Amino acid sequence: MEIKMGVSKAGIKPSGDYDILVLKFRPSVYSLVMTQNSLAAAPVVYDRMVSQMTDRISAVVVNSGNANAATGEEGLENARKMAELTEELLGIEENQSFVFSTGVIGVQLPMEKVERGIKEACENLDKLDLELAARAISTTDSFPKFYRYEGVLNGKQYSIIGIAKGAGMIHPDMATMLAYIFTDVKIEKSLLDRVMKVVVERSFNSIDVDGCESTNDSFLIVATGENELEINEDNKTKFAKDILHVATELAKMIVKDGEGATKLIQINVHNASTKKEAKKIGEAVALSNLFKTAMFGNDPNWGRILSAVGQLHIDIDFSKVKLYIGDFLIYNGEPVNFDREEAVNYLKKNREVTIDIYLERGDSDWTYYTSDLTYKYVEINAEYTT
Amino acid sequence: MEIKMGVSKAGIKPSGDYDILVLKFRPSVYSLVMTQNSLAAAPVVYDRMVSQMTDRISAVVVNSGNANAATGEEGLENARKMAELTEELLGIEENQSFVFSTGVIGVQLPMEKVERGIKEACENLDKLDLELAARAISTTDSFPKFYRYEGVLNGKQYSIIGIAKGAGMIHPDMATMLAYIFTDVKIEKSLLDRVMKVVVERSFNSIDVDGCESTNDSFLIVATGENELEINEDNKTKFAKDILHVATELAKMIVKDGEGATKLIQINVHNASTKKEAKKIGEAVALSNLFKTAMFGNDPNWGRILSAVGQLHIDIDFSKVKLYIGDFLIYNGEPVNFDREEAVNYLKKNREVTIDIYLERGDSDWTYYTSDLTYKYVEINAEYTT
Repeated sequence: MEIKMGVSKAGIKPSGDYDILVLKFRPSVYSLVMTQNSLAAAPVVYDRMVSQMTDRISAVVVNSGNANAATGEEGLENARKMAELTEELLGIEENQSFVFSTGVIGVQLPMEKVERGIKEACENLDKLDLELAARAISTTDSFPKFYRYEGVLNGKQYSIIGIAKGAGMIHPDMATMLAYIFTDVKIEKSLLDRVMKVVVERSFNSIDVDGCESTNDSFLIVATGENELEINEDNKTKFAKDILHVATELAKMIVKDGEGATKLIQINVHNASTKKEAKKIGEAVALSNLFKTAMFGNDPNWGRILSAVGQLHIDIDFSKVKLYIGDFLIYNGEPVNFDREEAVNYLKKNREVTIDIYLERGDSDWTYYTSDLTYKYVEINAEYTT
Repeated sequence: MEIKMGVSKAGIKPSGDYDILVLKFRPSVYSLVMTQNSLAAAPVVYDRMVSQMTDRISAVVVNSGNANAATGEEGLENARKMAELTEELLGIEENQSFVFSTGVIGVQLPMEKVERGIKEACENLDKLDLELAARAISTTDSFPKFYRYEGVLNGKQYSIIGIAKGAGMIHPDMATMLAYIFTDVKIEKSLLDRVMKVVVERSFNSIDVDGCESTNDSFLIVATGENELEINEDNKTKFAKDILHVATELAKMIVKDGEGATKLIQINVHNASTKKEAKKIGEAVALSNLFKTAMFGNDPNWGRILSAVGQLHIDIDFSKVKLYIGDFLIYNGEPVNFDREEAVNYLKKNREVTIDIYLERGDSDWTYYTSDLTYKYVEINAEYTT
């Protein structure tokens, strides 16, 4: 894929690291999903307007260090300026770019710095460096998040690449998950939107760090069409699987980097009545502070898992429920005598652990990812003002 | 009120403290609300059956130290035995008592100890000592929770007394909030049930420590009718207010004793469209881990409060929203320049703090109570198994 990249250190981030990213590519089909939070940030409001006007985009501009959220009319004007300046400097048509921001809430963007940074980035376009791109959009992330995948469809090779940021949606005023996936296939926008819908539900909408949704969360898929491979009704399922694979890998990196997290916990819900029910159950466990602290303490505390499920008020027959932590059967319609010491060891020794819940209600499954709740999370987020 | 009390140290609690409470009173009108958690404990299932059969009860038996939850048929049989033994020993009719349990989940009750304890309690009935009663039903509580109130209605004095337990619904397998309120008025069951509905919503259903609902939560109001004062349509509102006062005081004690909590936070939501909306908004803020850690850090972080409200996806116009922390106006449709140092000081110096959110959408208000999220919470609940 021919994607050009420019980055700069505009001085928006206190750390002084890269904080502007510009990506330029040929006019491409896209699908965009943004936060449902009604306190939507200015760039979210702006991009929603743009997406009403165009089916193709040619550029993306991102700043990190300031979320441009809760900034009123002035904030919206600044988001517009960022997009227009990028379009002008790159020589592309109007309303053909999206703008994204991440960082502190409630502070106006330092526009002089931002404009200087965009200019520098646009004037120094080079070939895409995924790691550097991921770094330029990071805030509290402890590692850059990117992923490459070469797929094969109808005997043809094609590419998917992705970058993301987010360490939970959570740092003090440094919220937001951003994710961008590029692929070179040809695809209609309506079909890409359908693929997006499945993918986002199973990936970024199935992860949790602390239950808090940001004002700026955004996920963009771009299909440049440089590859001859065309996605249609016949091969869309395999294509969606490949995109989901990349999205899930990025999503897992975000959870792994969850603030203070020591564990990535995969919660597999099996045999629910519906997918919606399966997802809700996974989410209920993932969000439970009691479960998350137990995982931190390497405590195979099954009561907290079942109690979180029960909190949904679904008429589950717990005498049919089976629960596994790793390979350990912990509950089987009633308390089970399991090797507690071994189960504790399993939790202690693994950075990635699994919980499997069998419900015997139907044949719908779902996987949800979460992190544990630790001292470090409290430390990071209490942000001592003493 | 003539309420007789018996307590004993049956050895169910590891601490060896009082763990059986029996209360005996004349056949009385009651109203009972129990957990909606579908993993309901055996005593919850048993009491639901009894409440279908009788409009009056004469006794309550509670054990602490074991929740009798996730214990299957045997657990239900044990709950029944506790009630029947109590009825037999006290010489009252069948199905005239409720049974409650709180403590560890997934372990069968040590019935020999329980039966010996109930026997000792029933054989040593004495006059009610609220503090001792509260102590006998406590598990991880750091102080006994009780409250007395003398009301006046239609020129007549009447009494309300209450006891409660719960330190969040949260300790490792030591979940559960229990609350009992006794009053001496005469009242029809149907009217008491209506009063209960209002009271429970505004008190125990408007508090949070960690968003986790227990398998055993129960709230019982008993009206003995010893007082000549009759509650009817004309004076029910004042009566409900008095009961709500007592319930709210007990509820606040539970939040204050929230595991690891350093602050009781009162969230007042003003001018919402409906009461339901107001409650939801208060709850969203109360449940936000980001807000709760900010409060621990004495950080007047308004972005986290508004973002939690936005997460409800209600079409709130944030340009009309006003936000106060204590007396400090922090947000007024846009970021406000407030004296940050003074606001930090306010949070630092007070054990009880208030947040006021004005929405300008209608005239419905709600108050929600929550605690902060601290290192100590993580410590208590991670329960080091190393």
